[in-house]
Amino acid sequence: MTSDASCKSLRSWLQQHQELLEDYLTFLRFPTVSAESSHKSALLSCVDWLRHYIAQMGLEVELWPTQGHPVLFASYDKAGPSKPTLLIYNHYDVQPVDPLSEWHSPPFEPMVRHGCVYARGAEDNKGQCFFVLQAIRALMERDGSLPLNLKLCVEGEEEVGSPSLATLLRDKQEALKADYLAIVDVGIPAADRPAITLGLRGIVTMTVTVEGTLTDLHSGTHGGLVFNPLHALVSLLASLRDAAGRITVPGFYDDVEELTLQEKSLLTLDFDSQSYERLVGASPTGGEHAYSPCERAWLRPTLEINGLSGGYQGSGFKTVIPAKATAKLSCRLVPHQDPLRIGRLIADFLQKHAPEGTKVNVDIHPGVGKAIRSAPDSNLVQAFAQAYSEVFRRPCSFSLEGGSIPIATELAAVSGGELVLAGLGLAEDRAHAPNEHFSLERLEKGTLIIARAMELLGK
Amino acid sequence: MTSDASCKSLRSWLQQHQELLEDYLTFLRFPTVSAESSHKSALLSCVDWLRHYIAQMGLEVELWPTQGHPVLFASYDKAGPSKPTLLIYNHYDVQPVDPLSEWHSPPFEPMVRHGCVYARGAEDNKGQCFFVLQAIRALMERDGSLPLNLKLCVEGEEEVGSPSLATLLRDKQEALKADYLAIVDVGIPAADRPAITLGLRGIVTMTVTVEGTLTDLHSGTHGGLVFNPLHALVSLLASLRDAAGRITVPGFYDDVEELTLQEKSLLTLDFDSQSYERLVGASPTGGEHAYSPCERAWLRPTLEINGLSGGYQGSGFKTVIPAKATAKLSCRLVPHQDPLRIGRLIADFLQKHAPEGTKVNVDIHPGVGKAIRSAPDSNLVQAFAQAYSEVFRRPCSFSLEGGSIPIATELAAVSGGELVLAGLGLAEDRAHAPNEHFSLERLEKGTLIIARAMELLGK
Repeated sequence: MTSDASCKSLRSWLQQHQELLEDYLTFLRFPTVSAESSHKSALLSCVDWLRHYIAQMGLEVELWPTQGHPVLFASYDKAGPSKPTLLIYNHYDVQPVDPLSEWHSPPFEPMVRHGCVYARGAEDNKGQCFFVLQAIRALMERDGSLPLNLKLCVEGEEEVGSPSLATLLRDKQEALKADYLAIVDVGIPAADRPAITLGLRGIVTMTVTVEGTLTDLHSGTHGGLVFNPLHALVSLLASLRDAAGRITVPGFYDDVEELTLQEKSLLTLDFDSQSYERLVGASPTGGEHAYSPCERAWLRPTLEINGLSGGYQGSGFKTVIPAKATAKLSCRLVPHQDPLRIGRLIADFLQKHAPEGTKVNVDIHPGVGKAIRSAPDSNLVQAFAQAYSEVFRRPCSFSLEGGSIPIATELAAVSGGELVLAGLGLAEDRAHAPNEHFSLERLEKGTLIIARAMELLGK
Repeated sequence: MTSDASCKSLRSWLQQHQELLEDYLTFLRFPTVSAESSHKSALLSCVDWLRHYIAQMGLEVELWPTQGHPVLFASYDKAGPSKPTLLIYNHYDVQPVDPLSEWHSPPFEPMVRHGCVYARGAEDNKGQCFFVLQAIRALMERDGSLPLNLKLCVEGEEEVGSPSLATLLRDKQEALKADYLAIVDVGIPAADRPAITLGLRGIVTMTVTVEGTLTDLHSGTHGGLVFNPLHALVSLLASLRDAAGRITVPGFYDDVEELTLQEKSLLTLDFDSQSYERLVGASPTGGEHAYSPCERAWLRPTLEINGLSGGYQGSGFKTVIPAKATAKLSCRLVPHQDPLRIGRLIADFLQKHAPEGTKVNVDIHPGVGKAIRSAPDSNLVQAFAQAYSEVFRRPCSFSLEGGSIPIATELAAVSGGELVLAGLGLAEDRAHAPNEHFSLERLEKGTLIIARAMELLGK
C-alpha cells in the first residue's frame, strides 16, 4: 500500500468507528489524580479498565504491581524476530484539578464542545494515550496484524515523578528492551505546525518550610518581636533571583552549556509574543532578561515557586503571626545539570540565609529527572517526522519543549533503543490548568501518525 | 465597708457561687467566629443568650441590629444623677480557630485542665467579658444595687474591625455618653504583675493580590516565559523591609514621634528575652534592629504578613504557575499615624513596583483604628490602679500593649469620658492561637477588680 492509500484507509476506518469516542470519554471519567491518595481506587479501576480494553485488541497485557499505582505493560511479538520492536510510553494518571471553581464543566465529566473534549487528562495524557490505542486497533482490524513488534508501558505516577516505575526499571529491563522508544506525551508549536520534539528539560521539585515560634501568635502582641516566618520565606525566595531574572544560587549555572550555532540552526526559535499574550493574558516578561523567550522556555534552567501557604488564608482577616510557612519550588533543568545537586544547592542556600529566629527545612521530592535530547537523524525520529508530514501534509520541523518527563532518561537507558518524543499537545489545551481540553481533530491526526510511524518502522 | 472588707465579702460571694463556671462554659460553647459567615447563626444565638443572662441580673438590655452582628447594649441608671456613669466595652465574637489540628481539645468544647479553661475565646474576650458580668452580679446580689450608673456595650465584630459598631456610633451617641469608659480587652505583663495599659497600637489591614496570566499554567511549558505571580508577590513583600527590619515604604514613619524621656520613665521597658524565648520557642529577632524588644512591641509601628496563598498547597506536588497569588498584610500603628494614609502608601508602593506582566490590587479592609493613649493621672485610671493593687496586693504599674482595638478611639470620642484599658490577659493565654485558655484564678481577680473599681468610682 502507498503512504497515501494507507492514510486514506486508516481515515476511513476511523470514520466508520466513531463509537470509539465513547471509550475515550469512559477513560476520562476515572478521576486518576495520582498526587491525592483519596483517588487511589480510581487509579486501580482505571488501569483495570485499560487492561481489558487493550487485551481485547489482541495484545498480551499484564499489570506490574508497585508500592504506588500499577504499571500496565502490554506486548505484541507476532511480527517476528526480523521486525524491530517499538516501545510506547504513556500515563493514565492526571494532575489535580484545583482551582475547581474555574472549571466550566466538572473535570471528570467530559463534555464535547465545539469539536473539543473538556476534561482533566483530555490531552495530558489520556488523549495522547487513547490515540495510540486507536492506532493499534485500526491496524489490527484493518490488517489483522501489526507491522512491527510492539510494547506499551502505561504508568500511573507520571504527574508525581514516576517513583514506582523508576524502581521497577532494573527488574523489568528485559521486558522493556526495544529498538525504538516513543514517549507520546509532548506537543507541537501550533495546530498547523507539525514538529518533533528533540528535547525536554529535567526537573527537581521541593517543599521549603520555614518555622519560627512554637505556635501561631497574635500579631499585635508579638508583631515587631518575633521574626515572622512569612517574612523569612518571602525574603529567602525573593533572594533566589536577581533583578535580571538570573538565579543567584551559587553553582546553579555551573553545568549549563550554551547551544552551538549548528544546534540552534535546527530549531525554530521564533516566538510570537503577541499571540502568546493573547493566549495566556500576559506578556512573556518572566525568566532571564538576557535570553529570548524560546531560549528561556527551552534552553535555560528555571527556578519557579509553584505554591505558597502560611498564616490566615480565609475570608476576612486574622491578625496572626503563624508558626510556619511553606513554599513548593521546582527547577526545570537543561542537559548536564544534575537534579539532586541542584536541589541541594538550593537547600544549602536557603538554610544558610535563614534569618536568626527561624529554621528552614527543604524536602527534595523523589521523581527528579535529568534533561533529555534525542538525535534528529535517527531512524525513529525520521520515521515519525515523515508520519507527521504525511498526516499534516506539511514539512515537519524540530523543536524543544520546556516541560519534563522525569522517567524519560531512565526509560531510554533501560530500553536501549532510539528515542522520540512525540505528541500533539498545544499550549492552549490547558494541560495542568482548569478547562483542559483536546480536539477531536488532533485525536484523529494522532491515530494516523502513530499508525503510519509503525508502518514506516516495520517496513 | 472598708476596701479589705469589700474584697473579702466579694471573694466569699464568689466562693458560694461556683456554679457560675457553668455559665462561662455555656458562653464559650457558641462558635462565634465573626470572620466566617458560616457562623452567623452562632453569633445570633450567643447574643440572645447574653441578652437574657444580663436582663436576669437586673439591667435593661437591648440589641442594636446592624448589617452584621447585633450589638448588645445594657444599662443601669438607678444610682441616680449624683453618681457617675461607667461604660464598659467587651465583645462576644472570637477569632477563627485554624489550624484546628493543633488544638488539644475542640475549640468550642471548653475543658477545664489544671485550673485553666481551654476554648477559643476563653480569654479574648469572653473570659474578660464574663468577669465583668460576674462583678455586676456579685454587687447586685450582695448590695441590691450598683454604686454607680452603668452601661455595657458588647459587640460581635471586634475581631473583624468593628465595622457595624463604628457605623452605629453617631446614632447612638446619646446612649453611649458616659463619664468613664473601660475597655476590658487587654492584659498584664505577668500573672503576678498588676498593670494598667496606657496605650494600644492602631491597625490597618489589607489583602494584596498579584495577578499574572488568565489561568494557571504548566510550569514546564511556561516557566521562564511568564512572570510568575508568586515570584512577583515574594519580591514585592520582601522589598517592604530592609535588612535592618525598617519599613521601606516612603512616608511610613513620617508621623511617628519618639517618646519623651518623661513618658518612658512611667513605663517598665524591661524585657526578659530568655523567658520570652521559653514561652514562644524563638528569640525576639523580628522588627527594627535599632530598637529594644519593648519598643518594637509597643512604641514602633510594624508591617507584618499575616497570610500567604497561591499555587498548589496540597500534598505531593503540582508543577503549576498560578494565575494569581494573595497576601494578607497588617500594620500596627503608633499615635499620629493615620491608618488609611498608611494603607494607601503601602498600596501605592506595591503597585508602583509591580513587575511588568503582573497586576497588583490592594484592598484596604474596613475596621482600621488609630493608636490610643490614656492619661495615667485621670480619676478612672487611678481607681482601676487602686483596684488592681488591692486585689493583687501589690503596687500597680503602667504598661503599653502592642495589640489594637480599632473601635477604642472612636468609642472614647463618642462616650466623651475618660478612658481606661483594663484586663488580665497574659501572652501565654494563646489568644488568637490554638489552645487559647484563661485561668480561673484570673477570672476571680477580674471579677474583684471590676467590682472594686465600680465601688471606688461610685464613692
